[in-house]
Amino acid sequence: MAKNLEFVLLLDCYGELLTERQKEIAELYYNEDFSLSEIAQIQHITRQAVSDSLRHSEQIMQQTEEKLGMAGRIRQMRNCLEQILESCQNENIPRITELAENGLQWL
Amino acid sequence: MAKNLEFVLLLDCYGELLTERQKEIAELYYNEDFSLSEIAQIQHITRQAVSDSLRHSEQIMQQTEEKLGMAGRIRQMRNCLEQILESCQNENIPRITELAENGLQWL
Repeated sequence: MAKNLEFVLLLDCYGELLTERQKEIAELYYNEDFSLSEIAQIQHITRQAVSDSLRHSEQIMQQTEEKLGMAGRIRQMRNCLEQILESCQNENIPRITELAENGLQWL
Repeated sequence: MAKNLEFVLLLDCYGELLTERQKEIAELYYNEDFSLSEIAQIQHITRQAVSDSLRHSEQIMQQTEEKLGMAGRIRQMRNCLEQILESCQNENIPRITELAENGLQWL
């Protein structure tokens, strides 16, 4: 199972829709970069159970994204603010730089 | 039942979690500004049924927002981009104005 950066964003958006256990496993895998085997040890379950849990969580999050599309909107907004910050580097406009940097913290 | 602008944003974020009928009624009420009685006529149901449907939809959307908080993030981003646009008015930076205006379209 290749780690997919897309799921880091989906987990950020929809992690609260997972069960406590599913969320814990997904966070260890996507945010903390643990391997399947390491998570199996931590959670006292088999490597296969970790893999099944991740696959199920990914399915839930992907289906929710297909319905709500919030991760896509967050991604667009991040691109937008990053482009604004890039443009700010060529100008002397500290107020806008500050606003865009603050905005990125919400994404 | 007072129309609450908050629900316009919640409907935009979470409308797809409602049933087709619930969504239709909520859109007529919040986006098209129809009254309860007008919606009752359009949908061939009682005014009370419209009111019950809206209340139920609002509950679903509020509970989802408590879990996911996406409407709050969208609101923060909108404020951020509006402040950037305001700052742009005092400077001659059309590139950033354009980026912020495009960004607002995603919100």
